[in-house]
Amino acid sequence: MSSGRISELDPFGPGTPRGAMTGRRVEAFSDGVFAIAITLLVLDLVVPNRAEGDAEGLGHLLAEQWPAYLAYIISFMVIGIIWVNHHTVFNKVRMVDRKVLFANLLLLLIVSAIPFPTKLIAEYLRAGADSHLAAAIYSSTMLAMGLAYSALWLAVTRDARLLHEHVDPAAGRAAIRRFGLGNALYVCTIGLSYVNAILTLAVHGALAVYYCFDQLAGADRDG
Amino acid sequence: MSSGRISELDPFGPGTPRGAMTGRRVEAFSDGVFAIAITLLVLDLVVPNRAEGDAEGLGHLLAEQWPAYLAYIISFMVIGIIWVNHHTVFNKVRMVDRKVLFANLLLLLIVSAIPFPTKLIAEYLRAGADSHLAAAIYSSTMLAMGLAYSALWLAVTRDARLLHEHVDPAAGRAAIRRFGLGNALYVCTIGLSYVNAILTLAVHGALAVYYCFDQLAGADRDG
Amino acid sequence: MSSGRISELDPFGPGTPRGAMTGRRVEAFSDGVFAIAITLLVLDLVVPNRAEGDAEGLGHLLAEQWPAYLAYIISFMVIGIIWVNHHTVFNKVRMVDRKVLFANLLLLLIVSAIPFPTKLIAEYLRAGADSHLAAAIYSSTMLAMGLAYSALWLAVTRDARLLHEHVDPAAGRAAIRRFGLGNALYVCTIGLSYVNAILTLAVHGALAVYYCFDQLAGADRDG
Amino acid sequence: MSSGRISELDPFGPGTPRGAMTGRRVEAFSDGVFAIAITLLVLDLVVPNRAEGDAEGLGHLLAEQWPAYLAYIISFMVIGIIWVNHHTVFNKVRMVDRKVLFANLLLLLIVSAIPFPTKLIAEYLRAGADSHLAAAIYSSTMLAMGLAYSALWLAVTRDARLLHEHVDPAAGRAAIRRFGLGNALYVCTIGLSYVNAILTLAVHGALAVYYCFDQLAGADRDG
Repeated sequence: MSSGRISELDPFGPGTPRGAMTGRRVEAFSDGVFAIAITLLVLDLVVPNRAEGDAEGLGHLLAEQWPAYLAYIISFMVIGIIWVNHHTVFNKVRMVDRKVLFANLLLLLIVSAIPFPTKLIAEYLRAGADSHLAAAIYSSTMLAMGLAYSALWLAVTRDARLLHEHVDPAAGRAAIRRFGLGNALYVCTIGLSYVNAILTLAVHGALAVYYCFDQLAGADRDG
Repeated sequence: MSSGRISELDPFGPGTPRGAMTGRRVEAFSDGVFAIAITLLVLDLVVPNRAEGDAEGLGHLLAEQWPAYLAYIISFMVIGIIWVNHHTVFNKVRMVDRKVLFANLLLLLIVSAIPFPTKLIAEYLRAGADSHLAAAIYSSTMLAMGLAYSALWLAVTRDARLLHEHVDPAAGRAAIRRFGLGNALYVCTIGLSYVNAILTLAVHGALAVYYCFDQLAGADRDG
Repeated sequence: MSSGRISELDPFGPGTPRGAMTGRRVEAFSDGVFAIAITLLVLDLVVPNRAEGDAEGLGHLLAEQWPAYLAYIISFMVIGIIWVNHHTVFNKVRMVDRKVLFANLLLLLIVSAIPFPTKLIAEYLRAGADSHLAAAIYSSTMLAMGLAYSALWLAVTRDARLLHEHVDPAAGRAAIRRFGLGNALYVCTIGLSYVNAILTLAVHGALAVYYCFDQLAGADRDG
Repeated sequence: MSSGRISELDPFGPGTPRGAMTGRRVEAFSDGVFAIAITLLVLDLVVPNRAEGDAEGLGHLLAEQWPAYLAYIISFMVIGIIWVNHHTVFNKVRMVDRKVLFANLLLLLIVSAIPFPTKLIAEYLRAGADSHLAAAIYSSTMLAMGLAYSALWLAVTRDARLLHEHVDPAAGRAAIRRFGLGNALYVCTIGLSYVNAILTLAVHGALAVYYCFDQLAGADRDG
């Protein structure tokens, strides 16, 4: 499973980081993982058993599942926003080396795991004491995602050779401070989980809506 | 999770809407979601339990599942048609801004949710009073999809800079009136759901077949 | 959901079939469906319940599942071969019109449904009388796939404008006769299903192996 | 399902191996399978039943599932590493013939099957005697993957016409000896499975971490 001696014959020529590849294939693979993770969320929505349906009525059974719908929409927005931001990063990238590849794989690991904490919080949102743990796991996943995104950003901006010529790596590194705020907010939601799980999920929803509108407003201001 | 200061260094140059990206990667991501949603539909087809098979015979058990096959084929056609239309939109697009990105994500949210109402209507099509609600949810999903598609179309045609040079945004905006008819039909199917669920599903099937042939006929006329 | 008046402004210019698109995006979408259908097959492999494992031993329980492994490998090979052939078709295609699009969607409908008959034959292969029906459904799926592939081939070769300039549509249409043999074989396997289900699955395996080696031998002969 | 007479009209011109295609579409299809297999792993993580949760507490139930999390992360790393190496191979490839196509399909067959042995080892890691068989099956899957990767490498480097001009096929073939070591290690883990299943899984984890750091270190040395 090693790349072997043949990697000396790298098509990018001398002076290129070993194992470098254009951003194109990383984008394609990442888009695949984002697209699958966002679509697998639908498997968390379970059609109520018909036997139960006879007793209580389908409407009542479906209404009972509101945490599943809410968690579905929030997680969908989160993955969607991360995908848009992922694109923003790779727009600046000329090629990637193995450090970027593995930082990217770490982000994808967390993104592809999102259907699990989503189902967990949907199932346990009204489960008394257990709701706190479920919400804390959901919040921790968001924090892990924020940290992995920051790591990817650092990996990309650490080496000017990886970026398009007109992109300033120093400006890129400065942007990392803004991520700190988002990550600090996610730490707060972990604490909030032990106060109220439903409120925690609502805050994640509000954050996702805020990120959407922030970016849409940005498009208006500059467009 | 913000795009940060580095986005001033946009590769598209001055005068470009902030956050703009070429349509290529949006298409690739959308194709991924369409392809996964259309393929996940197969998970709604359940192999009958062998223990039951001993009593009734596999043929009888499979024949009992006809609503699942019908709903599978109709939802497959619907996603297929939307994919073809999605391509028609992005054929005209030179680049996308964040408004288009999020209108597109809204459409993908609904497309990727389709396996859920599909399984719901398959399961409850013959469930008496519950069949009406299941059919109304299926019809509402179609309406939401039609509205999201209209929103995407408006987002794309609102700004001539997003379109290829030879595309006329005014003509594009005019086409939106034709979508109104389709969306009005979907509103009618919601009402029809409370009359007869099987008839409602049949109407969705007829609409899907009509859209297929309409487009094929168009290809003949102009080809 | 109609393409509307804007489609008169087709980027391919006058004389181009309406709704034409390059083969690139159809390939990408089809590759997505092929890749997902081939990977979803793994969900047909079920880990035995641990409670049963205590009584009988995991080795025995896994060995009992041999029809599932056999059906998995055969269906994987079938989808793989169809994907290779699909590539052969689209290698000759310059652009596609809506007829090709919908013929392609019909093929994808059948390919994406393959996990269902695969699970069905795995579950019912040793189920006495029910095994015949399960094998006949599997064989019918293969026949439907062969017919859909033939329909795609006819749709592509019916109009020289859709093909690359150096491709001869008449030669393409002649090749269709060779597909007739494969489809006739699939009709025979439907009949064979009512003689012996295990033998039927073995014949499908032998056909898949034959198609693999036939193509590999062709590569040697001409390479 | 044969490519038929039309394949004489190959777009690559005379002297090209029959059935040759550029690496681009093989990469795209393979990326799809890798992306789906790596994302389907999340379905192996099961949300504990709420009825049980009432009795024992969610925290305890989740902690009990540690083999599932461990197996998830190890299998994710393994597929990620294979994907990076797969890219290294196809970086050198100018076009592929059918032998490469089918060697690649064999690798994808094993990659797409990985969620099954992953779930198996997670479920049976603490199941006494059965744990040995589950670990041996997991280890055998890794060996099969190593052998399939070696076969793909041999298929690619056997014919200089398939490689980019500056790539030396002899150097490529020499690299195959290094794969022998990795494959021998996988044979050892099969033996180790019958000593201790947990230790075996830990060794697979250590190997995956080693491969990640080996490649990262390589990037530092030469970059």
